[in-house]
Amino acid sequence: MQHQENQTIPTVAREMIDEIETLVESGDYGALRDRLSDLHPADIAGLLEYLQEEERHILLSLIEDNRLGETVLHLPEEQREEYLDELGPSRIAEIVDELDPDDAADVISELSDEIAEQVLGQMQQVDSESTDEIRELLRYDEETAGGRMTTDYVSIQQDETVASAIENIRDAVREYEIDIYVLYVVDAEEKLVAFVRLQDLVLHSPQTLVSSFMVRDVITVTADEDQELVAQLMQRYDLIHVPVVDNDNHLLGIVTFDDIAEIIEEEASEDILYMVGVTDDEESPSTPAFLSLRRRLPWLIMNLGTAFIASMVVSQFEGTIGRVTALAALMPIVAGMGGNAAVQSIVVMVRSIALGDFGSGSKVRALVKEVTVGLMNGLVLGLLAGFVVWGMWGSFRLGILIALAMFVNLIVAGLVGTTIPLLLRKLKFDPALSSGPIATTFTDVCGFLTFLGLATLTLSWLLT
Amino acid sequence: MQHQENQTIPTVAREMIDEIETLVESGDYGALRDRLSDLHPADIAGLLEYLQEEERHILLSLIEDNRLGETVLHLPEEQREEYLDELGPSRIAEIVDELDPDDAADVISELSDEIAEQVLGQMQQVDSESTDEIRELLRYDEETAGGRMTTDYVSIQQDETVASAIENIRDAVREYEIDIYVLYVVDAEEKLVAFVRLQDLVLHSPQTLVSSFMVRDVITVTADEDQELVAQLMQRYDLIHVPVVDNDNHLLGIVTFDDIAEIIEEEASEDILYMVGVTDDEESPSTPAFLSLRRRLPWLIMNLGTAFIASMVVSQFEGTIGRVTALAALMPIVAGMGGNAAVQSIVVMVRSIALGDFGSGSKVRALVKEVTVGLMNGLVLGLLAGFVVWGMWGSFRLGILIALAMFVNLIVAGLVGTTIPLLLRKLKFDPALSSGPIATTFTDVCGFLTFLGLATLTLSWLLT
Repeated sequence: MQHQENQTIPTVAREMIDEIETLVESGDYGALRDRLSDLHPADIAGLLEYLQEEERHILLSLIEDNRLGETVLHLPEEQREEYLDELGPSRIAEIVDELDPDDAADVISELSDEIAEQVLGQMQQVDSESTDEIRELLRYDEETAGGRMTTDYVSIQQDETVASAIENIRDAVREYEIDIYVLYVVDAEEKLVAFVRLQDLVLHSPQTLVSSFMVRDVITVTADEDQELVAQLMQRYDLIHVPVVDNDNHLLGIVTFDDIAEIIEEEASEDILYMVGVTDDEESPSTPAFLSLRRRLPWLIMNLGTAFIASMVVSQFEGTIGRVTALAALMPIVAGMGGNAAVQSIVVMVRSIALGDFGSGSKVRALVKEVTVGLMNGLVLGLLAGFVVWGMWGSFRLGILIALAMFVNLIVAGLVGTTIPLLLRKLKFDPALSSGPIATTFTDVCGFLTFLGLATLTLSWLLT
Repeated sequence: MQHQENQTIPTVAREMIDEIETLVESGDYGALRDRLSDLHPADIAGLLEYLQEEERHILLSLIEDNRLGETVLHLPEEQREEYLDELGPSRIAEIVDELDPDDAADVISELSDEIAEQVLGQMQQVDSESTDEIRELLRYDEETAGGRMTTDYVSIQQDETVASAIENIRDAVREYEIDIYVLYVVDAEEKLVAFVRLQDLVLHSPQTLVSSFMVRDVITVTADEDQELVAQLMQRYDLIHVPVVDNDNHLLGIVTFDDIAEIIEEEASEDILYMVGVTDDEESPSTPAFLSLRRRLPWLIMNLGTAFIASMVVSQFEGTIGRVTALAALMPIVAGMGGNAAVQSIVVMVRSIALGDFGSGSKVRALVKEVTVGLMNGLVLGLLAGFVVWGMWGSFRLGILIALAMFVNLIVAGLVGTTIPLLLRKLKFDPALSSGPIATTFTDVCGFLTFLGLATLTLSWLLT
């Protein structure tokens, strides 16, 4: 594995920003409009982040409606909300109307209930069928298969020929401007029967019945399935789409390949952020400070509570510390190293659980392994710390003391680092969210207890 | 955002494991072979993880060669290596030969150089053309576009008709058994000119020239581009494939949608694991303990070093601690809370950098924001801690002391939590790898220094 810095595609080239700014200043809106029509909506969205508010308004007013929706979709969530808030419901309706149903539902779900209802009301007047579809999609939790799926897909009947399947595609492309890779075969009751790959249509003569080459072995998910499961399925079986069905196997929609990246990224970010108590996966440097505070403070307060628990343990040994003040300087080392090692175990466990490569038979194996690592960590780090203390504090006995305490605490670290995520998962908590503080409370308490406890037991020996 | 536990698809149902085990024991290998031929290779791989070594061998011997490759590919890396080690090079060659070139290259790259050369030698005799392709792919770093791409794609010339393009697809499907969604249009020198979607072939008459509807605006990457950039591009523009070209725009291969999930997951796992000093993104509970130790220990040793730095600071104040031993119990709280808050800032920064939504203009904004959060954190947590200390330790003055120290340290946390990742990135280090220990050393040192320093300055006031 090669180390590389975190690279990113620059969202927009500096030259493009300069060019656009010059065009805005020159007031040549015709040229500006032409330039914008060459750009991908994702790039326009990137550009908007760099502009002043006034320039941003001018730009947004120049984008054609059919591209404005896509552009808005690519803006960071907070900027999107800010922008939409300024527009009236009827303008939002016009923009959202150009989006795929699943994207439209996503944007609408971010609006306040009142505004959302007004937007849907407006859209209803223009296109009641697709508005009903969006309302349908809004019923699902955002992070489920239903919340992720789009209703833009092509379905055909079993008795159709290649030629009529192609006519279906032609209609769909004309109506929705979508990319089609797979067609779904349904029976008379709209129940999913099979799928047909586009390439198979190409390779068969127009009169062939699709039933002669359709694939009956379809992997499906139900609408209430968690998005993480959908991503795992797509990944394991290299699927380009996953059809979403209800409990009677009626086809409701499809989750497409471009969602999988977002799902995986969301889930991974969630894991990382939760682990340090940032309980919102949308948190970014542009999140308002007050909002960030509200999201991070509860976890810190919980940590403060556990820190006081550990400090109570220390309090019990104030007498010993008063006599050997070097203990005060060394005790954070024992506690801290245990915490660091526990967090390593936790992260490996949490990721394995999240990636789904954690079989039921492997719990004991994982525990044995992490405790073994803890034992070896303890041996190496304990000896190392012992020698440093002997050398720098000039006390061989203090060295032995820290070595022993460290050894014990690093085994405890392996133990709690493995069992706590598993336990939390068993109790249906998110192991990423609370493993850290719980485990480090254990290693803090245990570190202080062994180190200061041993010191108290051997106080007379230590002082001679 | 709704909280949900980390769910996973069970890799295999318990019943299936039981069923297979019964079949193995019964010795009815015919029935076993039939059962296996119904299963997806990913599921067979899942099954193998649950079996004893002997059963595993029987199972592997019953899988047809053309599915054995896929099965092996779905095994966890360590199990795959173990299994391949047992087979001779000529058997490996037979299995690998059935894989897509990019997958074949991935498997071969995991072998020792000697074995890899023997495998390639064997393959050369059977199919020298595709072996050359694999050799070509092996030249690229695994984590680049070149290392990710496959050479199984269909390219056509500009002057071809729909009918002849379809013939190209027919040949490719017959030869490689691949899924095709997009065709690439190249000129006489094999330079990439445009692409054609399969659906456009379906919708045009056989005599139409592809040049009449091909899309000239192709997003490409060069072979040495980092895989993270490829994933970001695919995500931003919702691409199903990204063509990989050399510096003269010759088409070399394509990275397909099924790679993107793996790339994103790898990069996200890397970020999390690196952050806690687990310097291998393949680390899992089944990694041998000794290997895990080798990967985690260096970071822990580094932490031990920084912990000693912090303890040196404490040492300077041993006199003060000797007189007010409660300081020993409270000082880890001040230091620890700073560390927790700093890690929150770091994670938000590191994820934003990784996700590419960190514009160049936003550094100052991020700094101001995190320091503001730190200030507010400090106010709330400082007051809270102050009251608890006043209540429990019965000393109002000690309460004021901890409140002040906490306030200062949480501002420092916001400051270092923002600047250190940015600084590391500027110096071309991976911000995820080393931000944590560096930042917490700062907050430890600063926490001890302010708390014990203030105590020393106000010692006589404290003691009255």
